[in-house]
Amino acid sequence: MTIDAALDWVDTRRRELLARFGDLLRIPSISTDPAYAAEVRRCAEWLVAECRRIGFDRCQAIATAGHPVVYAEWLHAGPDAPTVLVYAHYDVQPVEPLELWETPPFEPDIRNGNLYARGAIDDKCGAFANLVAFEALLATAGALPVNIKLMFEGEEESGSPAMEPFVRAHKDLLAADLLLICDGGSLPGQPLMFYTARGIVDAEVRVSGPSHDLHSGLYGGVVQNPIHVVAAIIAGLHDASGRVQLPGFYAAVRPADEEERANIARQEAAFTAKFRRDTGLESSWAPELGSLVTRATALPTCDVNGVWGGYQGVGGKTIIPAEAGFKVSMRLVPDQDPQAVLESFRQFVQRFASDTAQISIRTGGASYPATLLSRGPVIDALQRAFQATWGQPALLYRQGGSVPIMGMFQRELGMDLATLGFGTGDNGHAPNEYLIVEELWRGIATALHFYHNLGEQAGQHR
Amino acid sequence: MTIDAALDWVDTRRRELLARFGDLLRIPSISTDPAYAAEVRRCAEWLVAECRRIGFDRCQAIATAGHPVVYAEWLHAGPDAPTVLVYAHYDVQPVEPLELWETPPFEPDIRNGNLYARGAIDDKCGAFANLVAFEALLATAGALPVNIKLMFEGEEESGSPAMEPFVRAHKDLLAADLLLICDGGSLPGQPLMFYTARGIVDAEVRVSGPSHDLHSGLYGGVVQNPIHVVAAIIAGLHDASGRVQLPGFYAAVRPADEEERANIARQEAAFTAKFRRDTGLESSWAPELGSLVTRATALPTCDVNGVWGGYQGVGGKTIIPAEAGFKVSMRLVPDQDPQAVLESFRQFVQRFASDTAQISIRTGGASYPATLLSRGPVIDALQRAFQATWGQPALLYRQGGSVPIMGMFQRELGMDLATLGFGTGDNGHAPNEYLIVEELWRGIATALHFYHNLGEQAGQHR
Repeated sequence: MTIDAALDWVDTRRRELLARFGDLLRIPSISTDPAYAAEVRRCAEWLVAECRRIGFDRCQAIATAGHPVVYAEWLHAGPDAPTVLVYAHYDVQPVEPLELWETPPFEPDIRNGNLYARGAIDDKCGAFANLVAFEALLATAGALPVNIKLMFEGEEESGSPAMEPFVRAHKDLLAADLLLICDGGSLPGQPLMFYTARGIVDAEVRVSGPSHDLHSGLYGGVVQNPIHVVAAIIAGLHDASGRVQLPGFYAAVRPADEEERANIARQEAAFTAKFRRDTGLESSWAPELGSLVTRATALPTCDVNGVWGGYQGVGGKTIIPAEAGFKVSMRLVPDQDPQAVLESFRQFVQRFASDTAQISIRTGGASYPATLLSRGPVIDALQRAFQATWGQPALLYRQGGSVPIMGMFQRELGMDLATLGFGTGDNGHAPNEYLIVEELWRGIATALHFYHNLGEQAGQHR
Repeated sequence: MTIDAALDWVDTRRRELLARFGDLLRIPSISTDPAYAAEVRRCAEWLVAECRRIGFDRCQAIATAGHPVVYAEWLHAGPDAPTVLVYAHYDVQPVEPLELWETPPFEPDIRNGNLYARGAIDDKCGAFANLVAFEALLATAGALPVNIKLMFEGEEESGSPAMEPFVRAHKDLLAADLLLICDGGSLPGQPLMFYTARGIVDAEVRVSGPSHDLHSGLYGGVVQNPIHVVAAIIAGLHDASGRVQLPGFYAAVRPADEEERANIARQEAAFTAKFRRDTGLESSWAPELGSLVTRATALPTCDVNGVWGGYQGVGGKTIIPAEAGFKVSMRLVPDQDPQAVLESFRQFVQRFASDTAQISIRTGGASYPATLLSRGPVIDALQRAFQATWGQPALLYRQGGSVPIMGMFQRELGMDLATLGFGTGDNGHAPNEYLIVEELWRGIATALHFYHNLGEQAGQHR
């Protein structure tokens, strides 16, 4: 069995496949906002129908306490072939600020070879590219080289609150030899494969002062201003060097070993160029803490993602507001414990509470950092696939972002993890998210090679 | 000439007068938001028509660089009678947060003897009560006891940017013996008269970082977060005791003399009770700086009135925002200079700027603190009016709030200033602003007595 026919099958159907991807991207499956719950469900059902159409079995949207998980399987590769559980997520980030999008986020638009849409790289491409690869193999060879289980999550961007109970309840269904995480992507011209991902915790803090907004002419100077309290908390989170001030925050951080440091050094130049291009900034923050790549991937962070309080409209309004608040998220690295970090945060914040400033803290998702395969047969199969499609192996790196399910999977299922990302483009959580269309085709080819290589390895062992 | 007939005239027309006041309150004359400019103009025209209807001369809305000034005069009291320039403002504060209003802000509603509407106490009552008093006198006596010029401003809540050029251009038109400021009010059962008012400066600060919102998983830890910069600036504005940290902020503050300190001491108990009732708080902020009344009226303040940045919607969004900002206002006391304070603020804020955090500062209004009459014949005429209608003289106090026009008038026209406030109620800049209806009638009676007393004084001197 070769994959040449499958590769041809994809190449001759690009227009039709892009139209189908457009249908998926048009569904506004924003998981963080309850107003979009029906759209998230519609997106799950669209994927179930696709799985069924291409010939998978047991296709279903499995209900959870949160958004549904799409499951499907094709297990006819024989008892000796390995089983790969393929993970992607079909939910997307919110789209604000809407006015900065050049074209509407849920009306996919191709410009200069880039496909612009919310979810194009994060992470609807992960589900879609796999479905195309499997459809191509089934249409041309009538079979897949390995057994496949699909698991597409609907709440990754919300911190995956329902996934841990889901996994615990479906351990048999999900049993496999490898969990392949299809989230993330490469740089144009530089294939990437991450072998750790940061965990994440998030929280929302609200500070309440007076019972209602007050006239600052009457009560300025005698009422503690909730905005001032919020500012004091946020300002206290870092010292001047950028080091996070939560007690014990860095205690469990595992230092990079020599091989990792060498890997990191190889990434600095490319990442520095990407940093400048992406951010519009000449210099980075907190240089005393480590190199650019070290800070972005191997150290934990703490960022306030939103703040609000008082009057934000046009002109002025001389009030002391009744309330102010902020949202914060922290990226964690091996071996930090999310619950311990949240508890430290809670204690830190409550030190700012007083008779005249009540503080409430709502914690959101808490996910563990994860460590994936970085050598062995699976990595060899992946690297040979990259060599075949990119002309070079992937650079192994630490991932700055978080794929919450990974740490949890590691603890719950004890399964090997590896990654294959299709999201090569930019603006993942920002306006004008885009996927480089050529990289979608290359990614599908890489996947075809990888599944083929994995099937061949099994054949050799037979 | 007595005022009994005029007092009767008002008493027998309460229902009709309240309906007319309702028409005025229904006009959403929010001066800070350009979207309401046409409504501010409509409000001015409503007042011009009223002045004309009750028999005033030269009734007009005079165009300025900002919102129009309503002017009208009645100058037939004879050459020996004094001329009083009566000031009020017809613009109102914004109404956010709208959802906290029990009834819509521009649909006046009377509940439990209180008239709920935006502008009911701040300060449409000031214009309306005077018009009723003059209509009553003209309808019953055919004349006023003194010459009157009316000047109703349309941008007090915006810091009066166009009023200084207006006053400079109309010095002859505005010439008078006394400027009577009709803004503010009394406490139920305790007539009040302020003799200083705080000045005010305001500014908006924007911090710009990366060129667009960034994924905090990719760039957390390496990009300076504009929200963190905003928090650092705000947190730096005060020390732990509540003292403002702008260099030189307190240098020009004139300490209270012995008479003032005695006056302040007399107000502590009532103000403490009002503080608890209004704020829902048991304790006040920054007690080390002085007594409650001292901090609220005789010391300058600095309050952030609004803050924003990043994602404020439901759920989370793991971004580093491109921008964050805040609005701040400072209340100034004699003899602080608004321009010097703004310059100190500008320098203070710019210390937080860096290569990766551009800071822009837009300054708004800048008004001087003012010192008004606190003894002499005008104050005697006012106190006799209060004695007649409240059974006691007014308590002379420093005003915590600002009436920006006052300091400017003092410098531009060199005229004596006194105050007569009609806004007895609560929630001046907050949801559910209300006027105690009985106090409106008592205020009109006080005005009738005052103008009468002033006319009698002139007669005695003839």
